[in-house]
Amino acid sequence: MDAVTVPKQDRSRATRRRLLEAAIACLAEHGWAGSTVSVVAARAGVSRGAAQHHFRTRDDLFTAAVEHVAEERQAALRTLMAATSPLPGPARRHVIVTELVELYTGPLFRAALQLWVAASHDHAQLRRRVVDLEARVGRETHRMAVELLRADETAPGVRETVQGLLDMARGLGLATLLTDDGARRRRVVEQWVRILDGVLDVPVRDGR
Amino acid sequence: MDAVTVPKQDRSRATRRRLLEAAIACLAEHGWAGSTVSVVAARAGVSRGAAQHHFRTRDDLFTAAVEHVAEERQAALRTLMAATSPLPGPARRHVIVTELVELYTGPLFRAALQLWVAASHDHAQLRRRVVDLEARVGRETHRMAVELLRADETAPGVRETVQGLLDMARGLGLATLLTDDGARRRRVVEQWVRILDGVLDVPVRDGR
Repeated sequence: MDAVTVPKQDRSRATRRRLLEAAIACLAEHGWAGSTVSVVAARAGVSRGAAQHHFRTRDDLFTAAVEHVAEERQAALRTLMAATSPLPGPARRHVIVTELVELYTGPLFRAALQLWVAASHDHAQLRRRVVDLEARVGRETHRMAVELLRADETAPGVRETVQGLLDMARGLGLATLLTDDGARRRRVVEQWVRILDGVLDVPVRDGR
Repeated sequence: MDAVTVPKQDRSRATRRRLLEAAIACLAEHGWAGSTVSVVAARAGVSRGAAQHHFRTRDDLFTAAVEHVAEERQAALRTLMAATSPLPGPARRHVIVTELVELYTGPLFRAALQLWVAASHDHAQLRRRVVDLEARVGRETHRMAVELLRADETAPGVRETVQGLLDMARGLGLATLLTDDGARRRRVVEQWVRILDGVLDVPVRDGR
């Protein structure tokens, strides 16, 4: 191990991470129009030149930021999977649906939403990158949700049930954008966990 | 009837309507940052002065536009209610859930989304107005959904089931923002209509 280069790499990684986190916070608070590389660099305490060394363009910075936080949230879901594994079925499902819904109510979702909305009317290149990013994050979230819920996707309708649940989570997140809607959200989650219990607990047919 | 003043009122109403429709199209296509009173006036073929005669501020114009289209969509739902009334239960429910979901996939939703997102980081006054508008439109949409689905909200969980359905519709709309997601949406809707059939068709208990 090289005592000189390794700390330099560490510093570089730490700078990169600070930029990514500042980018998310900026997007969530100020929207796309108010989020430039300069604003993010200042918030991260990094020079504009250093920021551009890490991310060549504004699109690079913000798509990397959303991807970075999405990966962190997915790592948190994997930890949750291990932690809830010993719980009995219904209690486990309640924790998991609550956590899946929470994925869509924090700063990551707010930031991603700003990026989606910007991509819907900004330049075509940003749009393509965001569509691609969203497809990757969406597939991985779906995969995790199926695994966490121990859903059997070979049974008819189960895939669409899980998709609809994630769509509902996204819609609940959108409802939280302007007003704190936590009490209503908890009641909706409770009811939909009951509904899922009915749908997902259908006994698996013999031979499947 | 006064042959001079009535046509003048008609002209004024027509101008107002053209401005509202241009405002929705601008928001949906160019986002909040790209939607100014001047841009909308030009699109509507109206002078900036005439536009300001109808709407004193930019906030006035855009909140009125979203409210106007929301009212039009609700009128369309009332027509749907009459049209689907003779259909048998399950077919009727399928049409209704499909139409409720479609509420969130057109230009109105795209425009409203731009306004919500702008309100989440723009000035506090816009935020207050959009929160208030959203609460009114949301309540009315919920009321219409309950009526259309003939849901009995006195039964436990039914209110939250309908709310969750509308949250899912909003999430499906968000998924449509960047990519045409119609085929997936139809499959999700079909599955969730089946699920709703199970939840909402629970026989009403005696004495309720």
